[in-house]
Amino acid sequence: MNQDTGKENIKIYKGHIVYTESPEKFNVQENGYIIVENNKVTLANSSIPEKYSHISVIDFGDKLIIPGFVDLHLHAPQFPNRGLGLDKELLPWLEEYTFPEEAKYSDMDYAKKVYSRVVEDLWRNGTTRSVVFASIHNESTSLLFDLFVESGLGAYVGKVNMDRNCPDILIEDTQQSIKDTREYIENHIGKSEIVKPIITPRFVPTCTVELMKELGKMAKEFNVPIQSHLSENTNEIKWVKELHPEHKDYASVYDCYGLFGQNPTIMAHCIHNTEEEVALMKDNEVFVAHCPYSNLNLSSGIMPVRYFLDKGINVGLGSDVSGGNKIAIFDVMAISAQISKIKWLETNKELAPLTTSEVFYLGTKGGGKFFGKVGSFEEGYEFDALVIDDSNLFGEGLTIEERIQRFIYTGDDRNIVERYVAGNKIEKPSFK
Amino acid sequence: MNQDTGKENIKIYKGHIVYTESPEKFNVQENGYIIVENNKVTLANSSIPEKYSHISVIDFGDKLIIPGFVDLHLHAPQFPNRGLGLDKELLPWLEEYTFPEEAKYSDMDYAKKVYSRVVEDLWRNGTTRSVVFASIHNESTSLLFDLFVESGLGAYVGKVNMDRNCPDILIEDTQQSIKDTREYIENHIGKSEIVKPIITPRFVPTCTVELMKELGKMAKEFNVPIQSHLSENTNEIKWVKELHPEHKDYASVYDCYGLFGQNPTIMAHCIHNTEEEVALMKDNEVFVAHCPYSNLNLSSGIMPVRYFLDKGINVGLGSDVSGGNKIAIFDVMAISAQISKIKWLETNKELAPLTTSEVFYLGTKGGGKFFGKVGSFEEGYEFDALVIDDSNLFGEGLTIEERIQRFIYTGDDRNIVERYVAGNKIEKPSFK
Repeated sequence: MNQDTGKENIKIYKGHIVYTESPEKFNVQENGYIIVENNKVTLANSSIPEKYSHISVIDFGDKLIIPGFVDLHLHAPQFPNRGLGLDKELLPWLEEYTFPEEAKYSDMDYAKKVYSRVVEDLWRNGTTRSVVFASIHNESTSLLFDLFVESGLGAYVGKVNMDRNCPDILIEDTQQSIKDTREYIENHIGKSEIVKPIITPRFVPTCTVELMKELGKMAKEFNVPIQSHLSENTNEIKWVKELHPEHKDYASVYDCYGLFGQNPTIMAHCIHNTEEEVALMKDNEVFVAHCPYSNLNLSSGIMPVRYFLDKGINVGLGSDVSGGNKIAIFDVMAISAQISKIKWLETNKELAPLTTSEVFYLGTKGGGKFFGKVGSFEEGYEFDALVIDDSNLFGEGLTIEERIQRFIYTGDDRNIVERYVAGNKIEKPSFK
Repeated sequence: MNQDTGKENIKIYKGHIVYTESPEKFNVQENGYIIVENNKVTLANSSIPEKYSHISVIDFGDKLIIPGFVDLHLHAPQFPNRGLGLDKELLPWLEEYTFPEEAKYSDMDYAKKVYSRVVEDLWRNGTTRSVVFASIHNESTSLLFDLFVESGLGAYVGKVNMDRNCPDILIEDTQQSIKDTREYIENHIGKSEIVKPIITPRFVPTCTVELMKELGKMAKEFNVPIQSHLSENTNEIKWVKELHPEHKDYASVYDCYGLFGQNPTIMAHCIHNTEEEVALMKDNEVFVAHCPYSNLNLSSGIMPVRYFLDKGINVGLGSDVSGGNKIAIFDVMAISAQISKIKWLETNKELAPLTTSEVFYLGTKGGGKFFGKVGSFEEGYEFDALVIDDSNLFGEGLTIEERIQRFIYTGDDRNIVERYVAGNKIEKPSFK
């Protein structure tokens, strides 16, 4: 990270600038300029104001400049399982594929190998910010945290909590889980401006009431955010009902223990929620991580994104590796639009399909909001950006909007030629 | 094409051999051998019979050897539109995006540029055989045919017929359309063993009865196969009903004019067919090209593949560029499995999801059947093969089945390191 610390840290980038201030449409500056001062965007404009005329311009020519991608939900230790075991639904898949893999992360050599690759793959695919589940293991979770810091990518990294209904090899003692979480947070809070700890109860079925209660308190005490899963699968919902007959629904369990927006919270999936749960999400400003690839692979269903957007709920995108097989958020954008068309048909054309600008918004500013002013090129936003060379994608006379659509639907990591996070150019990680 | 013509044309390839004799499971030979004699597979086995001991082995080490991919449906002239205009349904999409692009193929320079790239992209993505719509233009359709021949890839290439309900710039005079088609077939039939002409009425709404009648006769006269579209979109079906109240359904229109299995026939899409139509498909041995990416993008719906398989109908996969945004058949395999899970949910778990071996079968032997003995490594099959280097995909201790699954779900063209068609190694096309 080459963070300039001089008095005048001003950079000007030139190219075709594309971002989404709001979901409805792309903001485009063809051959435009982005002025970045102290790592934040001052202006995205068609010309450079006089007072910046002494600054030399970094010119990306005919390339596109877009905000970095934001992944609101992925499981780093599941990375080696990408593309495997996808003939199962959620609960058997957890038992047969996921838990055995996650148990390996007491082995630091193994963790180093996998986590280095995870961070590298996020970098490669232009994911400049991500919100990550690690495993129950403090030591390797800390390692993942440090690898993010070293890489220059932004992240929330969570040590997973689970103290019931899971295999012996992964089950935590409640007190130990609480102690480890406290230690993890204390050791990492304030360590980095862009990599931070997050409270991470796996999901209700694997967390006792005592554990949830303490995690809720801890979130408050340290003022750290929270992530978990909600209403991914109908059997999971039934299970929660059996475990917690005292609560009226799944969301209320989290809410009762201070894990549902009391501090900023992300809930992954949210496919099968009741109207009341959605209203609670709205009131509590809970973020939803929409993970369509995972929802397809695990036969979970199609999340009604349009319904959530209409209700004014914060929605971002998640790769959900390894329930999801694709780590690239541009792939998740495309499938989000595609699958929303089936939702449209399923609902007798009531829930309108997502447009390209809408899915782009979800994968940039929509998720970026969880990080603060991230995911757009409006004034005051941190400069997280990708430079896209789409010259290999074929086709002539396209508008800038068409070029960004074409990249989302047909491009891949080879089209991403530069990455910036919080103003800093990020090179390919080379972990020692 | 380096076709050996000597008396003894025997090749032996070694690697992890994967194919699907039937959809239910993968056939795997770990560190196995494929013996190819006169460009056809003699044996895929764990060892080499004594009589071949004098033949040197081409050893691909830890790599996978799989059949080449078969694309039963794509539109070559729509290639520049990949990833564009995907906020529309079928009929407006045709009017606003597709027809204007297809009108350009009277320009031979433009056609050369696009078609060279199409063939190159098929090569890159391991599509060793494809069934292609060109446009109405004889000259550029012939060019596409010749580019396939030059490349060494197998294909059926069709000159499109359309003489009603289309824009002036693309509409054909009926007699001219018939004359051009006859000329196209006469000029290309017998020109190549693996690249052949195919009769290509666009779809019922754009073809008059007279044209369909003549095309049916021509298919019979020259003994050439037929391709078209069927029941992709509910508005399209309504339109056909309005145009042909005399026929009981969409399929019957084609059938009446000798375009529905009287010669080998592929119908793309088949999402909304009646039971009776499906029975006719079965009786007439009509192939279905399942094009899930296109069906998502154009909000067409989810084709009930399981229903067709249960009925014993021939199903293969189609990229349907540019309704489909992905040209790679391994991508189409993955989305076929993924979307079948939504079909399973939609049908109250009646139509079981497609497994990985099933979608692999569809994209190799299922579609390959249209070409004869293509898409498998059973005895007598033409040796169409890909060598897959998946060493960059991460993960240890996987079975061969897991490695092929991981390639389908997370790999890309970079993993394909060699391609063979009908016994010949195919290099990257370098068209003059």
